[in-house]
Amino acid sequence: MLAGIDLGGTQVRVALARSDGRLVASVKTKTALIGSPEALVDWAASEIDRHRGREKVRSITIAAPGPIDVKRGVLVNPPNLPWANVPLAALLSRATGAKVHVANDADMAGLGEFHHGAGRGTRNMVYITWSTGVGGGLIIDGKLHRGGHGTAGEIGHMIIDPNGPLDNCGQRGCLEAFISGRALAAQTGRPAAELFAAAARGDREARMIVERAAHHMGIGLISLTNVIDPEMFVIGGGVSRSWALIQPTMLETLRSSPFIKPARRPRLRRARLGDRAGQVGAVEWARINQ
Amino acid sequence: MLAGIDLGGTQVRVALARSDGRLVASVKTKTALIGSPEALVDWAASEIDRHRGREKVRSITIAAPGPIDVKRGVLVNPPNLPWANVPLAALLSRATGAKVHVANDADMAGLGEFHHGAGRGTRNMVYITWSTGVGGGLIIDGKLHRGGHGTAGEIGHMIIDPNGPLDNCGQRGCLEAFISGRALAAQTGRPAAELFAAAARGDREARMIVERAAHHMGIGLISLTNVIDPEMFVIGGGVSRSWALIQPTMLETLRSSPFIKPARRPRLRRARLGDRAGQVGAVEWARINQ
Repeated sequence: MLAGIDLGGTQVRVALARSDGRLVASVKTKTALIGSPEALVDWAASEIDRHRGREKVRSITIAAPGPIDVKRGVLVNPPNLPWANVPLAALLSRATGAKVHVANDADMAGLGEFHHGAGRGTRNMVYITWSTGVGGGLIIDGKLHRGGHGTAGEIGHMIIDPNGPLDNCGQRGCLEAFISGRALAAQTGRPAAELFAAAARGDREARMIVERAAHHMGIGLISLTNVIDPEMFVIGGGVSRSWALIQPTMLETLRSSPFIKPARRPRLRRARLGDRAGQVGAVEWARINQ
Repeated sequence: MLAGIDLGGTQVRVALARSDGRLVASVKTKTALIGSPEALVDWAASEIDRHRGREKVRSITIAAPGPIDVKRGVLVNPPNLPWANVPLAALLSRATGAKVHVANDADMAGLGEFHHGAGRGTRNMVYITWSTGVGGGLIIDGKLHRGGHGTAGEIGHMIIDPNGPLDNCGQRGCLEAFISGRALAAQTGRPAAELFAAAARGDREARMIVERAAHHMGIGLISLTNVIDPEMFVIGGGVSRSWALIQPTMLETLRSSPFIKPARRPRLRRARLGDRAGQVGAVEWARINQ
């Protein structure tokens, strides 16, 4: 059997699947209830043990927020957890006897959407998670592209204006510095969720801010199209729930490029798997790497 | 046997190689001496015939400037030639009996540098040609990535500042609109070659302009690193001849990103194959697709 674990900022999810990827069980708990890496490993190992029946779990992938040392399976410095340099793969492997990989959560969500969500049937797909931050995962020729050092797909850190605002990451003018939930909250002095709710109610100022953000995302989509030439963009993350507010402007901006002729213009789709994308991708990665 | 043809703005080159890629002969002529697609095909076919001995040439690739319809082997609208919608693959296939592919010249130069030039030994490499325009070719996991519609690697058309100058392509603020030889000539009122020569002589204003261009290229390298995570950038094209003028600023800009830690910073190399990169890559593509 296989298992996929999604270590999110709010929830931790464990999914068990047969070796062909078919889901058997899925459980979750609140991240806040888990106090330490050891507690996480204990909880995940016991949930896996409880649901595996008489089968052996051979391969597990943990989807976690970056930065990650994917080769050694170490969480370097997760943004929402007070942990540093946690050898999560080694700990969980010891507890379960399985082969364990740690992978970037946006990569796993992209892989999930590619195999079982909005991106099915494509060969080249760019997944973007638009939420508190902006991340992504690239599918190139039917395979997840992780890059030379396991850090590909950092779409939020493309520079879209070198004179733009300073980003958390230390770069100036990152896409993320313009449009992430964090940046929008800082710009407007209210939580991003509130801003999107106001825009949905028709608040004019909120609407303008949301449309400007969607335009900036569209600028990013133009650059990504010219560099990567995907067949499809899949947008996930919390902001994608406001699809009707963001889709028209993103598409209009993408269409405004005379260089990107209609015949090569990627389709723009909302992610389909919601909060489950990470665990679905993690199971898929466990299957590929079993 | 294999053949690679590089249809450049100044010269046309034909290279013949054994089926393992080993070069047998290489000839060239001036593009201006060739008046029509038919004349090009006649010349190339007779040169191939003259050098093939008793061997049969089974696979040929023509490297040509975009836009190209790679599936049908058609030159859509080459920027330096008064030809439109030329079915070059079909014409040359009829004349030689070989399987013929038409491919993007920057892709082929990138492939050449990857297999036989500066990029040897990498798995993920971004080739950038910096010349009259700015183009590129991506090597992803050891293979040329052409994208969903054959137009990946258009690095010059990443938007690095949405309020920047209007580019020839119709987009505003493309990397190319800031730094291409064409843009630098328009900005300064003198040919780019003269500008680089003046900078090399120590002319302060020329030097400033060249360094600003290298800085803008560095901004593009930051975005490409965050999206693609390559092990190496290889810079070719006419401007790369002024390596000592551009390399320090490009590298300094790349290093200025606190987000790109030294351990994942790509190496920055000058292309090695010079004008031969396109034909070397075209032979390689003919070999891969024989």
